[in-house]
Amino acid sequence: MRTVKAYAATKAKGEFEPFEFELGDIEPDEVDISVESCGICHSDLSMLDDEWGMAQYPLVPGHEVIGTVSAIGDHVTHLKVGDRVGLGWHAGYCMVCDQCMGGDHNLCASAQPTIAARHGGFADTVRAKAPSVVKIPDGLDPAEAGPLLCGGIAVFNPLVQFDVSPTANVAVIGIGGLGHLGLKFANAWGCHVTAFTSPSKQEEALAMGAHDTVNSRDPDAIKNASGRFDLVLSTVNVQMDWNAILATLKPRGRLQMPGAVNEPLGINVLPHMMFNQLSVGSSPVGAPVVIRRMLDFAARHNVTPVNEHFPMSKVNEAFEHLRSGKARYRIVLDRD
Amino acid sequence: MRTVKAYAATKAKGEFEPFEFELGDIEPDEVDISVESCGICHSDLSMLDDEWGMAQYPLVPGHEVIGTVSAIGDHVTHLKVGDRVGLGWHAGYCMVCDQCMGGDHNLCASAQPTIAARHGGFADTVRAKAPSVVKIPDGLDPAEAGPLLCGGIAVFNPLVQFDVSPTANVAVIGIGGLGHLGLKFANAWGCHVTAFTSPSKQEEALAMGAHDTVNSRDPDAIKNASGRFDLVLSTVNVQMDWNAILATLKPRGRLQMPGAVNEPLGINVLPHMMFNQLSVGSSPVGAPVVIRRMLDFAARHNVTPVNEHFPMSKVNEAFEHLRSGKARYRIVLDRD
Repeated sequence: MRTVKAYAATKAKGEFEPFEFELGDIEPDEVDISVESCGICHSDLSMLDDEWGMAQYPLVPGHEVIGTVSAIGDHVTHLKVGDRVGLGWHAGYCMVCDQCMGGDHNLCASAQPTIAARHGGFADTVRAKAPSVVKIPDGLDPAEAGPLLCGGIAVFNPLVQFDVSPTANVAVIGIGGLGHLGLKFANAWGCHVTAFTSPSKQEEALAMGAHDTVNSRDPDAIKNASGRFDLVLSTVNVQMDWNAILATLKPRGRLQMPGAVNEPLGINVLPHMMFNQLSVGSSPVGAPVVIRRMLDFAARHNVTPVNEHFPMSKVNEAFEHLRSGKARYRIVLDRD
Repeated sequence: MRTVKAYAATKAKGEFEPFEFELGDIEPDEVDISVESCGICHSDLSMLDDEWGMAQYPLVPGHEVIGTVSAIGDHVTHLKVGDRVGLGWHAGYCMVCDQCMGGDHNLCASAQPTIAARHGGFADTVRAKAPSVVKIPDGLDPAEAGPLLCGGIAVFNPLVQFDVSPTANVAVIGIGGLGHLGLKFANAWGCHVTAFTSPSKQEEALAMGAHDTVNSRDPDAIKNASGRFDLVLSTVNVQMDWNAILATLKPRGRLQMPGAVNEPLGINVLPHMMFNQLSVGSSPVGAPVVIRRMLDFAARHNVTPVNEHFPMSKVNEAFEHLRSGKARYRIVLDRD
């Protein structure tokens, strides 16, 4: 038995307060992580507000965890106490369905979100099933790496899943928590990178890896980008003129939407989708094996999230900052 | 100079009448085909009715042409007079754009439709650029092969483009001119095949290669098919509950729409598209190299369209039959 000190909200849209709970005996396939820092993801805010109807209170969010292994179960072979590790959106998988057996654990229908029916990383300790816990490679600054584990993998995974070539022209729509990592990863991947963003973020987008920019609020600018991109990564969660975006794709192009738009997309088959053989898709975070590849790639190419830091005890201030839309670009809570 | 005897409509939705026109001297890269038969495709009807605003009158439709080479230009090397050949939706390509140079001639922005700004196959002779003319392999009955050249390739091409595995579960929505060929090709490809169709066509669908059927008019039946398919080929041109169709896909599945739906699709990102990493796409007919592969595959696996035959002189009766929705499943006009 072990007492965990955490921060929890006791109701939807509530404030976080100190919260203690007991961890039972560790199971043979589990790992305890002593938390060093934890990123805040927009989905933590969605869970706090219970936007998806799946939050349980007291809610301890936090699924971009960096820490060291403090305990392992008897069957854990790939980690040892003291290893520096990360934990993302999923804290466990069934391990036996076709998706898990095929390496797509992130598509497992029984995958366990780290912050639904479990307690997450706004705590001194978080427990997870061992397969979901990944080692942080040497060469990656652990103090800044947290946001890679959800925001980063959401934009990195499409590059892997759809075999994007380093010769590709890639556009990233929305330069925020996800989008800024999309620019960095696509640049490191070797692609030509275009940022769809407002003029106010243009300079920053160029500094973070974009080769050029398109003013995403100017329909003429989007029209002028006709037929340019092999891949458009949309990280926004608001409705756009998706048919105008489809027109910016080259033949065989793909509009991939790691951003969750809540309204129906209103995509037309004719003319662009059919005549240019386009695809539209979405995807969640990645499987552990892809997260490992991402972390190695990030270390080799020095891909680091741009973070603002708050001490974990200031979690309420940090959420207020996120809610205001002023975060540039991710927020990391450091354990006090 | 050569006088061609054809059937043309002189106005939108008009009747076909005998029509003669002169062919000028053959260009070095052109081929003349002495027409033996020509399939009628739904897009011939769309052009007759000028649904897409691109028809020119007098209009000679027909782009599922089977015949023999009657003349070749000086630069033509892969065909000789007397060869039995086919011609589909495209009668020429620019040959130098990235798409043409990459083998995707069907995605060439300057591809020349056989029946737009050209005269098609409802004629004794049709002229085309040589790269668009494909040899009909021995072992394929030329009298029935015509509909493969547009209807067939529209459903075969996705199997090639998206590397569909013979282990895949494939559903075909709509068992008509395209759909019945989808069943036959997917079956010959080695897949498990499910027909989404009305109960009245169930027996025929099973006879044409479906392993089972789903009543496409019964929402509960569609719901019961949840998570079953790697690929859904939709050949219908009417609106459906596409989000219910997305729910029938397995993780990593694809809804591919060779059928042209005119209304926006109203696809939702959440939950199925994102959490199951789904893709939605469309595609036009195939490139010549894929048409060649299709014809070889059809010959080897005895994939033959189910055709009703009319003499070309009865073209108006044939169109009436098509317009009534009673064609089972394709119509072929035989030269009188």
